[in-house]
Amino acid sequence: MLDLTQDVRALTAAIVDIESVSGGEKALADAVEQALTALPHLTVDRSGESVVARTNLGRAERVLIAGHLDTVPVAANLPSRVEGDLLYGCGTSDMKAGVAVALRLAATVPAPNRDVTYVFYDCEEIEAERNGLTRVARDHPEWLAADFAVLMEPTDGMIEGGCQGTLRADVTVTGKRAHSARSWFGVNAVHGIEPVLARLNAYEARLPTVDGLEYHEGLNAVAVRGGVAGNVIPDECVVTVNYRFAPDLTIEQAEQHVREVFEGYRVSFLDAAPGARPGLTHPVAAAFTAAVGGTPRAKLGWTDVSRFSALGVPAVNYGPGDPNLAHQQGEYVSLPKIVESERALLNWLTK
Amino acid sequence: MLDLTQDVRALTAAIVDIESVSGGEKALADAVEQALTALPHLTVDRSGESVVARTNLGRAERVLIAGHLDTVPVAANLPSRVEGDLLYGCGTSDMKAGVAVALRLAATVPAPNRDVTYVFYDCEEIEAERNGLTRVARDHPEWLAADFAVLMEPTDGMIEGGCQGTLRADVTVTGKRAHSARSWFGVNAVHGIEPVLARLNAYEARLPTVDGLEYHEGLNAVAVRGGVAGNVIPDECVVTVNYRFAPDLTIEQAEQHVREVFEGYRVSFLDAAPGARPGLTHPVAAAFTAAVGGTPRAKLGWTDVSRFSALGVPAVNYGPGDPNLAHQQGEYVSLPKIVESERALLNWLTK
Repeated sequence: MLDLTQDVRALTAAIVDIESVSGGEKALADAVEQALTALPHLTVDRSGESVVARTNLGRAERVLIAGHLDTVPVAANLPSRVEGDLLYGCGTSDMKAGVAVALRLAATVPAPNRDVTYVFYDCEEIEAERNGLTRVARDHPEWLAADFAVLMEPTDGMIEGGCQGTLRADVTVTGKRAHSARSWFGVNAVHGIEPVLARLNAYEARLPTVDGLEYHEGLNAVAVRGGVAGNVIPDECVVTVNYRFAPDLTIEQAEQHVREVFEGYRVSFLDAAPGARPGLTHPVAAAFTAAVGGTPRAKLGWTDVSRFSALGVPAVNYGPGDPNLAHQQGEYVSLPKIVESERALLNWLTK
Repeated sequence: MLDLTQDVRALTAAIVDIESVSGGEKALADAVEQALTALPHLTVDRSGESVVARTNLGRAERVLIAGHLDTVPVAANLPSRVEGDLLYGCGTSDMKAGVAVALRLAATVPAPNRDVTYVFYDCEEIEAERNGLTRVARDHPEWLAADFAVLMEPTDGMIEGGCQGTLRADVTVTGKRAHSARSWFGVNAVHGIEPVLARLNAYEARLPTVDGLEYHEGLNAVAVRGGVAGNVIPDECVVTVNYRFAPDLTIEQAEQHVREVFEGYRVSFLDAAPGARPGLTHPVAAAFTAAVGGTPRAKLGWTDVSRFSALGVPAVNYGPGDPNLAHQQGEYVSLPKIVESERALLNWLTK
């Protein structure tokens, strides 16, 4: 039985030591469900390996605190070990330290000043269709109803508002095949991407301010492919571009922008995920910001806050882990940061 | 037994109907060897599935007439069939019509005005290391000694002098990986090939005249590749270029030229084959040109004439087949062209 009365640092180590690589979260989900079900002030639901627990105090506001239970594959970095102020191990920063903070709050704040929904979900580190939050949002959207959400992704204890959207598109240039010994009978599609690359090189990325936070867009080739054989003039060349767009644009607006940049070329869209506005102008977010302190900054990468945003729930990223250590073999988390994070959220939910 | 006394058109059909896809030339090589061995005026040698037959009359000059026995894979185009003036079937143009002409000359000209070496070889349509001419040149270079060679590749009855050389090289641009959400921390190698493509687009190909024939060079990208993942700024992009160079340049000079074009970039050479000078200024070649007629033109593609050139034997391409039909399912050869070719060579060797 997971002991939620122990110090948050020890609790972090305890759940790091329950291996939970994506798809293998059952043991940890069982332990979390069992520990939360034992708490009389919480209603607990489960969907697959995701666990959702709620207070039901009839407060004017409801906030949501979420963390994923899964980790990237273990890389000979379990069990956890402490060295000085650092706890080493797979998932320490991304994001079991944040999960431990949430579990501690669930256990130790039976009567928060706002109703709280705690969400612990599976399969964040892998393809979107297996993501537990996607599944819960589809099957039980009412479980996720809230006025504001905190996603405990590693942010080094900073508030990172919203997230940028992302889309990928193929820009295709066509030509005409010919034997390379008589190349003038063909039209070389690889040569033909020069103006596409020129537009990318000349591209000036927007730095828009959205809800008070400055974002930083980017439009980049992430792949290029072309070629038929070593003696053939290629008749097709495809540049795959990735547009990271600030959350003041919808996917449709972002697609339109990409079409405009590559006007005159065939553009086909491969996939897209919307951004999420930071939502820091909402009163409950302001209270959160005041409790946590620091200057909120824009989240440039894409995270699951976008899923909350899609449900109409403003959300921020905030967690004690270090984002630069995520997915690394030498991953660790600062133990004082975990304590600090617990204290800040406790302050927010009780003051 | 292959009947070399029959009309050259019928002989062509007969050898087309002995299937001889590269690697499977034994039946045809056996038939050719048997038929030539029966001729008292010829000395016959064999290496693998290649057959070499020579007159030994002590003439002042020796000429060589060569053709490959193999074909590309059969594509439901055997046995051969005649429609009007056309003989359809796998290998008709490339190059059993030429082989038939050579066999007819071997059989019907016991005392040519120049000593003649007839070479029938295997595996021309596949990788160079299996090429029968490569093998004979390595194991029995004396068999190929001659003052002039005619390679009976399909040229539509025109003399095509020499051949252009070819080399391939990778031009590599490096960058620095970064997450595409924070692309400004990286250096995009795909964007970085823009100047490489600009040089290719601005490239002005030489049209040098070599031994009286005008060649036409070409420098082209034949492939491009780059990309790590859909969310990563690529740190490497490689443009594979193919330089087709006129036979006034050696491979070393051609490589130097490519290095100069892409100065400032990493260039690594993948493979190369030398060109061959047309050699039409040689007296024996002039006699050949006079006998065959027409205006010789430059051969732009690479052919085995380069192997003769490497042995110090000037060589031209000349054959009754149509080069545009080679390797096509609907391959055919014009029957009158075969007769015309036999007549021209007969003229050359007897007048």
